[in-house]
Amino acid sequence: MRIIGVIGTSECGAELCGLAREVGRLIAQRGAALVCGGLGGVMEAAARGAKEAGGLTLGILPGDERREANAYIDLAIPTGMGEGRNFLVVRSAEALIAIGGGHGTLSEIALALKTGKRVIGLKTPWEDVPGVITAQTPEEAVEKALLPEQP
Amino acid sequence: MRIIGVIGTSECGAELCGLAREVGRLIAQRGAALVCGGLGGVMEAAARGAKEAGGLTLGILPGDERREANAYIDLAIPTGMGEGRNFLVVRSAEALIAIGGGHGTLSEIALALKTGKRVIGLKTPWEDVPGVITAQTPEEAVEKALLPEQP
Amino acid sequence: MRIIGVIGTSECGAELCGLAREVGRLIAQRGAALVCGGLGGVMEAAARGAKEAGGLTLGILPGDERREANAYIDLAIPTGMGEGRNFLVVRSAEALIAIGGGHGTLSEIALALKTGKRVIGLKTPWEDVPGVITAQTPEEAVEKALLPEQP
Amino acid sequence: MRIIGVIGTSECGAELCGLAREVGRLIAQRGAALVCGGLGGVMEAAARGAKEAGGLTLGILPGDERREANAYIDLAIPTGMGEGRNFLVVRSAEALIAIGGGHGTLSEIALALKTGKRVIGLKTPWEDVPGVITAQTPEEAVEKALLPEQP
Repeated sequence: MRIIGVIGTSECGAELCGLAREVGRLIAQRGAALVCGGLGGVMEAAARGAKEAGGLTLGILPGDERREANAYIDLAIPTGMGEGRNFLVVRSAEALIAIGGGHGTLSEIALALKTGKRVIGLKTPWEDVPGVITAQTPEEAVEKALLPEQP
Repeated sequence: MRIIGVIGTSECGAELCGLAREVGRLIAQRGAALVCGGLGGVMEAAARGAKEAGGLTLGILPGDERREANAYIDLAIPTGMGEGRNFLVVRSAEALIAIGGGHGTLSEIALALKTGKRVIGLKTPWEDVPGVITAQTPEEAVEKALLPEQP
Repeated sequence: MRIIGVIGTSECGAELCGLAREVGRLIAQRGAALVCGGLGGVMEAAARGAKEAGGLTLGILPGDERREANAYIDLAIPTGMGEGRNFLVVRSAEALIAIGGGHGTLSEIALALKTGKRVIGLKTPWEDVPGVITAQTPEEAVEKALLPEQP
Repeated sequence: MRIIGVIGTSECGAELCGLAREVGRLIAQRGAALVCGGLGGVMEAAARGAKEAGGLTLGILPGDERREANAYIDLAIPTGMGEGRNFLVVRSAEALIAIGGGHGTLSEIALALKTGKRVIGLKTPWEDVPGVITAQTPEEAVEKALLPEQP
C-alpha cells in the first residue's frame, strides 16, 4: 500500500485546515494511506479528510500514549521520542505534502529532502527551501506526491 | 483500533509458523490490527494469517526500504534503526504474543514488561522470564492478549 | 578511546552498589571510558567509581534534560526516548557488564547479544541467558570486558 | 560539563573548514566539550580544532560502527539510525553552531529551534531561517553559543 505523508502546523485556521482536509480526502480517493504526526491542526484535518473518503490513517505520535492521537487516526504508533519521531514520519512516507508549518515541519522537510523523498509544498512558509516542489491546489499536491516512485 | 504485536524468531519450522499463522488469523477475526517487525519467520506467518482473515497488518522494519517487508504487510514503516526498532514494535502494541524467538525477541519481551505491557508466551524459550504469561494454544494467547486494556 | 558499558538496577543495596563502584574504578584505571544510562543505582555507583579513579563517564539519559543525570556523569546525552534509549547504551559500548538488574537491564543484555556485543554478568539475575559470560569479581568482569575487541 | 554542537556540511573547502577548526579550538579553550555528527567536513575540522586545544569531542554517528568516526573523535556513539541520529546531536548540545550545510544541517537547525535550543549561524545558507542568530566570526559564534544557558 502506498503511503503519503502530510505534515504541517499543529494549529490551523480555516484556510489551511480546509486545504489539509481536502488533501487527506484526495489521498484516500487515490487509494493511498495517509501518515502524519497524529496530533492536531493540519495533522487532524488531513486525517479527517482521509477518513471521510474511506481511507486509512496512521499517526506517529511523539508521546507514549495512544490516546493522544486525534480522533481520525486508525493506527496510532506512540514512539515516546518527542520531536525525534519526525524522522519516522518521513521514513514512513514515500512522499510528503507540507501545509503551513513551523520549525517542526521544516525539520521534516529537510530530513525528507536529505533522504531523497519528494516534498510538495502547499501554502507553506518553507516553499523556498531548495528541493521543495510547490503546488497551488490540493489536487496538484496529491497528484505530484503520487507520481511513480523514484527508483 | 486495537493493535496486538506478534514477535518471534525470523526463521520458523512448521510448528512455530503454524502457530504464528493461527495467531494472526485470530487477531484479525477479533477485529484487531497486527503489528510485527515486518520480516520473515514468525513475523511473516502471523501477517499471512491476519491477511487470510481480512485483517490489517503493520510492519516496523529495521532497514530503510519498504521493499524489505514480507508480502503480507499492508503498512510498512521503514525505521532505519536496525534492532533499535524493537522498542517501536513494543510501543505500537497494547499487548504482545511471543512465539519462539532468540535474543531480539527477548529484548522486545523485556522492553514490553519494563513499560507495563502484557506479554503472552506461546512456545517461546523465554516463558520463564518473570512477568511473561504463558499460553498453550493460539486461542488462549489471543484471548489473553485482548483482555481489556490496563488503565 | 574504548568504551565499556555498565548496566543494572536503578536502586541498589550496599553489595551491588559496592561492586558497581569497583567496576567503574577498574574501567577507569584501565583507561577506558564508561557509558551507562545516567541515572541512579548501579549507573550512579559505577560512574562514581570511574570518577574517583580519574575516568571519563558518559550517561545516555531517557529524558530530555541533562539535569536528570547523576552527579558523576561528565557528558550527558539526553535522548528523550525513554526506555528506547537502551539500544543506544548498547551501541555505544564495545562490551557491557550487567550488575543486578530488572527488565530494563534484560532488554539491554538481549540487544547486546543480538548485535554481537560481549555481555559480562556479575551478580545479575540474568546470568543464565545464553550468551552471557559470568564473572565472580569486578576484576574478572572488567578483564573479560576489555579482552581485545572482536573483529 | 557544557556541550556545544557544531553542525555543517560533510565536505568543506578551505574557508569553511578553517572556520570550523577555529570554532572547535575556541570551544575547547572555553572548557566545553564539542558534539558533532562524527563524520567528515565541518564535523572533522571542528573536532580537530577542539583536540588541538586539548578539548573533548563526542561524535554521534549515523552508522553502527565506531570506526566510521573521524580521527579527532574521543567518544564515538554509533547509533545505527542514519539521518535519524540528527535529533540526538541536537539533544546532546545546549546550543549549536551551524557552518555551511545542506538539508541534513537544516534538519538539525529546525529541530534545535523547535526544542528551544539556541542556533548560531556562521556562513550557513540557512541563516535566514527565523530564529537563527548570525555570527560573523568564530569568536562571536562561540561567545553567543556559550551565553548562560536558558532556563
